[in-house]
Amino acid sequence: MATFTKMASARRMLQASSTSTASVSRDFSLQFVRSLTRGGGFREERDTFGPIQVPDDRYWGAQTQRSVQNFEIGDESERMPKQLVEALGILKKAAAIVNMEYGLDKKYGEAIVKAASEVAEGKLTDHFPLVVWQTGSGTQTNMNSNEVIANRAGEILGIPIGSKGVHPNDHVNMSQSSNDTFPTAMHIAAAREASSRLIPHLRGLHEALIQKQNEFNDIVKIGRTHTQDAVPITLGQVFSAYCTQVQYGINRIENTLPRLYQLAQGGTAVGTGLNTKKGFDTKFAAQVAKETGLPFVTAPNKFEALAAHDAIVECSGALNTVAVSLMKIANDIRLLGSGPRCGLHELILPENEPGSSIMPGKVNPTQCEALTMVCCQVMGNHTTITVAGANGHFELNVYKPVMINALLQSMVLLGDAAESFRKNCVVGIEANRNHIDNLMRRSLMLVTALNPKIGYDKAAACAKKAHKEGTTLKEAAMELGYLTSEEFDEWVDPKKMLGPS
Amino acid sequence: MATFTKMASARRMLQASSTSTASVSRDFSLQFVRSLTRGGGFREERDTFGPIQVPDDRYWGAQTQRSVQNFEIGDESERMPKQLVEALGILKKAAAIVNMEYGLDKKYGEAIVKAASEVAEGKLTDHFPLVVWQTGSGTQTNMNSNEVIANRAGEILGIPIGSKGVHPNDHVNMSQSSNDTFPTAMHIAAAREASSRLIPHLRGLHEALIQKQNEFNDIVKIGRTHTQDAVPITLGQVFSAYCTQVQYGINRIENTLPRLYQLAQGGTAVGTGLNTKKGFDTKFAAQVAKETGLPFVTAPNKFEALAAHDAIVECSGALNTVAVSLMKIANDIRLLGSGPRCGLHELILPENEPGSSIMPGKVNPTQCEALTMVCCQVMGNHTTITVAGANGHFELNVYKPVMINALLQSMVLLGDAAESFRKNCVVGIEANRNHIDNLMRRSLMLVTALNPKIGYDKAAACAKKAHKEGTTLKEAAMELGYLTSEEFDEWVDPKKMLGPS
Amino acid sequence: MATFTKMASARRMLQASSTSTASVSRDFSLQFVRSLTRGGGFREERDTFGPIQVPDDRYWGAQTQRSVQNFEIGDESERMPKQLVEALGILKKAAAIVNMEYGLDKKYGEAIVKAASEVAEGKLTDHFPLVVWQTGSGTQTNMNSNEVIANRAGEILGIPIGSKGVHPNDHVNMSQSSNDTFPTAMHIAAAREASSRLIPHLRGLHEALIQKQNEFNDIVKIGRTHTQDAVPITLGQVFSAYCTQVQYGINRIENTLPRLYQLAQGGTAVGTGLNTKKGFDTKFAAQVAKETGLPFVTAPNKFEALAAHDAIVECSGALNTVAVSLMKIANDIRLLGSGPRCGLHELILPENEPGSSIMPGKVNPTQCEALTMVCCQVMGNHTTITVAGANGHFELNVYKPVMINALLQSMVLLGDAAESFRKNCVVGIEANRNHIDNLMRRSLMLVTALNPKIGYDKAAACAKKAHKEGTTLKEAAMELGYLTSEEFDEWVDPKKMLGPS
Amino acid sequence: MATFTKMASARRMLQASSTSTASVSRDFSLQFVRSLTRGGGFREERDTFGPIQVPDDRYWGAQTQRSVQNFEIGDESERMPKQLVEALGILKKAAAIVNMEYGLDKKYGEAIVKAASEVAEGKLTDHFPLVVWQTGSGTQTNMNSNEVIANRAGEILGIPIGSKGVHPNDHVNMSQSSNDTFPTAMHIAAAREASSRLIPHLRGLHEALIQKQNEFNDIVKIGRTHTQDAVPITLGQVFSAYCTQVQYGINRIENTLPRLYQLAQGGTAVGTGLNTKKGFDTKFAAQVAKETGLPFVTAPNKFEALAAHDAIVECSGALNTVAVSLMKIANDIRLLGSGPRCGLHELILPENEPGSSIMPGKVNPTQCEALTMVCCQVMGNHTTITVAGANGHFELNVYKPVMINALLQSMVLLGDAAESFRKNCVVGIEANRNHIDNLMRRSLMLVTALNPKIGYDKAAACAKKAHKEGTTLKEAAMELGYLTSEEFDEWVDPKKMLGPS
Repeated sequence: MATFTKMASARRMLQASSTSTASVSRDFSLQFVRSLTRGGGFREERDTFGPIQVPDDRYWGAQTQRSVQNFEIGDESERMPKQLVEALGILKKAAAIVNMEYGLDKKYGEAIVKAASEVAEGKLTDHFPLVVWQTGSGTQTNMNSNEVIANRAGEILGIPIGSKGVHPNDHVNMSQSSNDTFPTAMHIAAAREASSRLIPHLRGLHEALIQKQNEFNDIVKIGRTHTQDAVPITLGQVFSAYCTQVQYGINRIENTLPRLYQLAQGGTAVGTGLNTKKGFDTKFAAQVAKETGLPFVTAPNKFEALAAHDAIVECSGALNTVAVSLMKIANDIRLLGSGPRCGLHELILPENEPGSSIMPGKVNPTQCEALTMVCCQVMGNHTTITVAGANGHFELNVYKPVMINALLQSMVLLGDAAESFRKNCVVGIEANRNHIDNLMRRSLMLVTALNPKIGYDKAAACAKKAHKEGTTLKEAAMELGYLTSEEFDEWVDPKKMLGPS
Repeated sequence: MATFTKMASARRMLQASSTSTASVSRDFSLQFVRSLTRGGGFREERDTFGPIQVPDDRYWGAQTQRSVQNFEIGDESERMPKQLVEALGILKKAAAIVNMEYGLDKKYGEAIVKAASEVAEGKLTDHFPLVVWQTGSGTQTNMNSNEVIANRAGEILGIPIGSKGVHPNDHVNMSQSSNDTFPTAMHIAAAREASSRLIPHLRGLHEALIQKQNEFNDIVKIGRTHTQDAVPITLGQVFSAYCTQVQYGINRIENTLPRLYQLAQGGTAVGTGLNTKKGFDTKFAAQVAKETGLPFVTAPNKFEALAAHDAIVECSGALNTVAVSLMKIANDIRLLGSGPRCGLHELILPENEPGSSIMPGKVNPTQCEALTMVCCQVMGNHTTITVAGANGHFELNVYKPVMINALLQSMVLLGDAAESFRKNCVVGIEANRNHIDNLMRRSLMLVTALNPKIGYDKAAACAKKAHKEGTTLKEAAMELGYLTSEEFDEWVDPKKMLGPS
Repeated sequence: MATFTKMASARRMLQASSTSTASVSRDFSLQFVRSLTRGGGFREERDTFGPIQVPDDRYWGAQTQRSVQNFEIGDESERMPKQLVEALGILKKAAAIVNMEYGLDKKYGEAIVKAASEVAEGKLTDHFPLVVWQTGSGTQTNMNSNEVIANRAGEILGIPIGSKGVHPNDHVNMSQSSNDTFPTAMHIAAAREASSRLIPHLRGLHEALIQKQNEFNDIVKIGRTHTQDAVPITLGQVFSAYCTQVQYGINRIENTLPRLYQLAQGGTAVGTGLNTKKGFDTKFAAQVAKETGLPFVTAPNKFEALAAHDAIVECSGALNTVAVSLMKIANDIRLLGSGPRCGLHELILPENEPGSSIMPGKVNPTQCEALTMVCCQVMGNHTTITVAGANGHFELNVYKPVMINALLQSMVLLGDAAESFRKNCVVGIEANRNHIDNLMRRSLMLVTALNPKIGYDKAAACAKKAHKEGTTLKEAAMELGYLTSEEFDEWVDPKKMLGPS
Repeated sequence: MATFTKMASARRMLQASSTSTASVSRDFSLQFVRSLTRGGGFREERDTFGPIQVPDDRYWGAQTQRSVQNFEIGDESERMPKQLVEALGILKKAAAIVNMEYGLDKKYGEAIVKAASEVAEGKLTDHFPLVVWQTGSGTQTNMNSNEVIANRAGEILGIPIGSKGVHPNDHVNMSQSSNDTFPTAMHIAAAREASSRLIPHLRGLHEALIQKQNEFNDIVKIGRTHTQDAVPITLGQVFSAYCTQVQYGINRIENTLPRLYQLAQGGTAVGTGLNTKKGFDTKFAAQVAKETGLPFVTAPNKFEALAAHDAIVECSGALNTVAVSLMKIANDIRLLGSGPRCGLHELILPENEPGSSIMPGKVNPTQCEALTMVCCQVMGNHTTITVAGANGHFELNVYKPVMINALLQSMVLLGDAAESFRKNCVVGIEANRNHIDNLMRRSLMLVTALNPKIGYDKAAACAKKAHKEGTTLKEAAMELGYLTSEEFDEWVDPKKMLGPS
């Protein structure tokens, strides 16, 4: 009998994934579900739609299972980001703590706190099978967290799994709606990711660039505008621009955090707070602040916090600006490092991998490549977030999962790529001092320095002669007899061309 | 002879626009140039490339004319934005004032101040023929301003036009390079546009929305999530979300201004400040602050200010977020105003134009349409600015004109559309009170209020019966005999569902 | 000793992931690597950079391992898409078959064919640990496939793993460079995904919509323009527009395939075909065509095929258009399905999950939500691909991994979401016939039909009276005494308003 | 009395533009209107909203004037594109010709044909004051064309202006609705612009590149991958990639034309064709085909043609791909032309303007800059069009003006910039043959050729020695005594490295 049920269930799940229109076999979601239940059986869970078979070694319940079957979109790489799942753990824990103040049975409350902590610590990730591409409110992932925590809390209390002794809605989701819960988890996840990885890694990159700025401060090189030779600049000055870009980038992200620190929790279904208690929202925000060490507050206007996600769009705009900055920096570094013989080759980039099996000496600026690819993704994610943010209707924006997924991906990739770029590229950059000096001395723009000495016309004659004949300025100037070798060396001094007089 | 020269010139100009590959006749730029010189002749101007014919009733000189001929891209609607030209006027005036402190001949200096003021006041717009699609540094437009101001200043001093008695480079462009001038003008133009039109108009919209929020505060209506009926909310609460979005939008723009207030001036060619004097940059910024009443300062790092335009990207990111907000608001308002008979029709929008010659009563929400179209343009401009900002090379980003053009268009359109939306739509919105009330009473979600009175199961039975039979909840409840009419009216009170208990 | 080496290696790997700048603990890549080697040891592999420790139960070699350690960017969800890995299997198999014609030892060749087939069939996916965010040429993933196939082919031949008896470069990569291999794999993966999942699923959706069009053909409903009531239309006509959009979408994608069918293979390092043999390219393409059943050909210009990926950008443009279409369709369906009491509710959408525990009858249009979120992602991916495609330099675009990753994600999500939308939404849509009829009859626009009978002025008077008093047109018309009930019923017939006369 | 009316009207117009919330004075639209009526007076026109004052030297009527006053968004640079206005002229002419077949009075019909022809020829552009940012259906611009043509046709017939003797709706708009008219004009305008300017200019560019490919065919140069030195390639091969990109770009645009050739005309208000006659649609399309010489047909599904503008999105996708191609090409050309002393400088670009007053010989690649800026705008316009296309509701997409405006701008800019780039840059590009040869000979990658002669290890030793000591390969090889000078010259021949063997 049990065997029959399991087989029927398996068949039903297989049927759910069959499609009459495509010859290609695919059932990624089910593959994933099966991979989690190797050799295992199923148990029955229920919701208002009736009973449904659930893998018996998983904590999730009926509503999660329905989402698995109804949204076979993408494979396991499309699952909800783990940072969001962890944020839901923090949220459910904080809600339980505050709910105990408002009358939630301590026995249940404390078990929920314990189970939720496990979610917050990433210990139950395998029990969150749902993909991003589900209901636009994220309700199914909220229910996933309610079901997992309820079953796990029940287990802690010795209650049979699936019995709803600890109830996913009545106890775990108490005083909450998916509509305020999911945006709260979005903000918690984003703010934590920003503070724990993205900003520290950008700071690390900034420090490494500052060090290079100092190291390169005395190296006078040719400046380039319009990609063409221009007047001199120091390599330190060049790097100071990168430092400023990264520093401002950090500021830009930080400027968006105050609105990410506003939490929707307490708005429940449409922002009114129906079915919640006065004071719940502020106590909840304080509890989350305590848990995370970040200055979360309750959102002054809950209607806005559910119906729109402008704070996510704004934050993505800051990430987009950072991507713009990093793309420029990485591009310059690889062009300045181009060569070794036929490029600009003013910088020597660290060699991290074999370039080519054919030619020794070929360094590919692979860290620049990874970083600039990341920047493209961040720019694209920004378009995704922009379109999603603009398309909400009425009291609830239902593009929540795609928005937080894209924002977190942008943060993770920017943070990791900044750190990889720092440690595998920036810290190892060396200046190709002789070549830099040779290039600069070869340049015709140094003629500028002769203007006040021999006049613009004679200076121009020197430059034109050098350009035409392919000689140095000095050779041309002396051949023309306008000045002595000593005079040239004294007057044409790039070091005097590096600032206002 | 003179006639011959003019004819040759005209011929040359015509040849410049001919193309062997396209059968379609087009010469927009020349049409524009001709439109400015109706019946007029030409004079000769010179630069290092030699002589060139220039319309003799225009102040511009040789370099402007070359750009007219070399960049026949788009028609007159593609000309540099007038706000940028006016910013160049402010800039040249401030530079002349500071230059006089550093030794610029007062006679020249004061004539330049006078001529530059005319540019700043928009009096010489017809002398700026160049399109956005020119050199990426904006050098040609900087030279356009130098040439116009030099010739006009010369005219003021009684010097023959074209004689370079007041010299475009030596006098008007003194201590400046295009490379620091153009980004300075970009920031001045953007900051002025933000303060003088965009932010005031958004404030106006915010005030109008606040007024509606107050006006609609007592109107209880059905909430909608997932576009489906949900629990009640007041129309005032709905509008409060719009108010918050607009208020935060203003804050978002204001947050980007500190970096727009940083001016590149003083960096000259590559950011070093070569050929400028110590202190010039800070005096200049102070002078611009005085002229504009805005808190401009000199940029702490001029290298960054030339090589990147992250401040423009950042500001555009804020505008993008505002566009997202306004798109949501305008969309909701038109959907809530849909009807008159077959839509939601909770709002009555002002009628500004005849809808259809066939059907009286048809109101098209045309202001919402104009506004949402503007939002699309702002989002697209943001992509433009993002790509342009990311693609700079070395010491100079050469996407300056496209960036400032897109940013100013976004600002102008958002500002104007917000004001048009305010005055032609928001202030005239009325609530369709009876219909709102009917809809809400018809809703099945009010059953929620019965849960604590008759229990979830009986409440559910009422709702299911009503849903199936198409009756009201009250009818269903009374038919089932679960409660009296008086009890229903007392217990099912949407006004008690509008906040935490 | 062996133990020491393993510990040292483990330590080195741990150090590689430590960062002094971030307090947050993270080492996703290593977690993944460890998860693949639970309880296992390491073996030494070598490349030109020297020896390196590799998990001893994995087929990959030194270059793959270096990439694991040098690119800790994102977690396992950021791994190269499996479709690309499988395409590399197909490619390596085809290359080996052709190489045997040109002299590759049959013993090696056949073992490579067998090992490559396993990659093509997805059996060795766990041996491809690398993330998208690596070198922009995809060289490391090409080497990953070379190393895995070489070691697995060696195993088949009884050669010790890691001994390079079957050599990753000399044998598996024979006649190839990463620079032609990776773009070839991109095209194979994209064309297969399009043909095997995306297009079949779009066809399935198209068929389902056609069925609904037929089913709804006789249902006359109110048309809506500007979101406002307009003249009548049938529900079948409405769905016919959706059908046309999807049909054209399929055509749009198909139109881009001819350029995806062009393969870069044979261009080697820069497109010249250095180190390959005459005829290799065409034989190779023919072999891939045979393997896949798709009409692949060799690219006429290999220089373009390496230096640019316009074909990917073009294809993404088609997907973007499909996303635009599907977003419109899904939006309309959810708005037409809005209700049940306070929305338009002309359509009844299938109920797939419990909506709310509070209110029976609430249907959330979750399939529309998943689909529209997917559309946002596709639009964003298109920006990513556009920026990446535009930023190549010289003979090699080095944004290959990000481009193919985004394109494949767009294809997978669009294909899966279209199928999910079809089977979980479209096939179950029902028309709310009575309500549709009531709404339409309530509409004032039917007055149009009276123009030829009683004249525009009297017709207008009817409409205005009905609008003002909230009555039906018929009531108004009869009260005004302009016509009889019978006349009204005869003349005002929406069915006669559905086409040209 | 007349004076009073005029003053009252002027006052009313001024009041309409005043705003209590902004201190900045602005009334661009009115400035434009005034500029068209310098010294003129006003006449009264009427619509169903009553009388309104219109400048008495303009043909437009009441509905146009209302739009002027209700949509003060942007200045005259935001007016509807002239190509669209001309397309409306073609459309109204064709409609009148077909309407005469269906009974339109010949007297009126022929006057309309004459007046519409003037619009089509661009003679009445000054009578089209409306901006893009109006109603999203473009109704107001359709009415603008109806009013102008009616008044002008009346004038031709000697009927007093404003008297509606030739009626804008009944005669000029006969058998039409704005809802089918405006999308028809969109398609006509886009298809004409593509055929008459964009494609010819791209063809011109393609031819110029082919010529350069041929000219550079024998020049062997260093190839570059990852921006680093790679194996040799000819400059002709490099240009062949550009040629292929441009050729494919033309194909991509042409592939989208079949759907642009489908005309919505005949669908009237919602696509049903209500109030039009059977056969009108096909006769109309045939007439437009005849007028334009382009293969227009009637759209098979009019519902789709009104409710969605996927054909515009698709076409913009092709333009976006072309922008990606041109950005790559222009970027490469400016980098290959960088220098003159400190860059790659393999190409010598034409000098079109003075670079710097300081340094002779500085060439700024300004044509590349204008072109790449245009590409950024095209990419941004594509985002605009994508978002606008995705946001239509029900039977009418109301983002029509923003979509066609962005599409036409992209076409104009791409076409003009391609032509400017061709004539001012490409045709004048010269190869810096000596420098190219020196760079290539300096390269270490030529060592590849020695592998089969002296073995990989000795070849590697040569390369490493040369890299370390900064010598040529030949010097290193001979110092090591591995081969003679003659052998080196015979074996190391880059010309043999340019294709398969």
